[in-house]
Amino acid sequence: MQEKIKYVTEQTDEYTMVSFELAEPILPEELKTTKPPEVNPTKGVIISGRGPIWLYGYLIHFYHHTKWIATHDPRLGGAVVVVSHTALKPCGTVVQIP
Amino acid sequence: MQEKIKYVTEQTDEYTMVSFELAEPILPEELKTTKPPEVNPTKGVIISGRGPIWLYGYLIHFYHHTKWIATHDPRLGGAVVVVSHTALKPCGTVVQIP
Repeated sequence: MQEKIKYVTEQTDEYTMVSFELAEPILPEELKTTKPPEVNPTKGVIISGRGPIWLYGYLIHFYHHTKWIATHDPRLGGAVVVVSHTALKPCGTVVQIP
Repeated sequence: MQEKIKYVTEQTDEYTMVSFELAEPILPEELKTTKPPEVNPTKGVIISGRGPIWLYGYLIHFYHHTKWIATHDPRLGGAVVVVSHTALKPCGTVVQIP
């Protein structure tokens, strides 16, 4: 079965951007089988994409071992740090996305 | 300063529902000062409310030590488990909300 959730990653020195695209609306049970991409845990992760809050929730937990995690908010022109293991990027920091 | 994020909790035998309400749109920096309510970690937590994905992300991490965490999705009539430490409620489970 082809996965309905397509992931694309892009890297900078500081973070990995994990963008997802949904070919069609997903069902909660797809959280049981989705395979998000592995990332370098010594960098941050920015999660981006149009999808349900519970998909974001799942991905945030999936990447919780990384340096920091932010979710993209297009209205802010950047991503907001929601999990952090570094004093340099506390929760609430907005990481600008070029 | 009064907090812009108001939290209300309700308990069942199985989980604590943490509902938030925003008196006005919040800024990312408010994640630095918000004080979500403490909950019983031996139960699950359901997070509910209208707000940005990054507020959900922050709350999901805040409660990650609890038995399981689900986010309310009104379209599904329930909440979807996104973090789980119990085989009885794996990720993707929909918890009906009466």
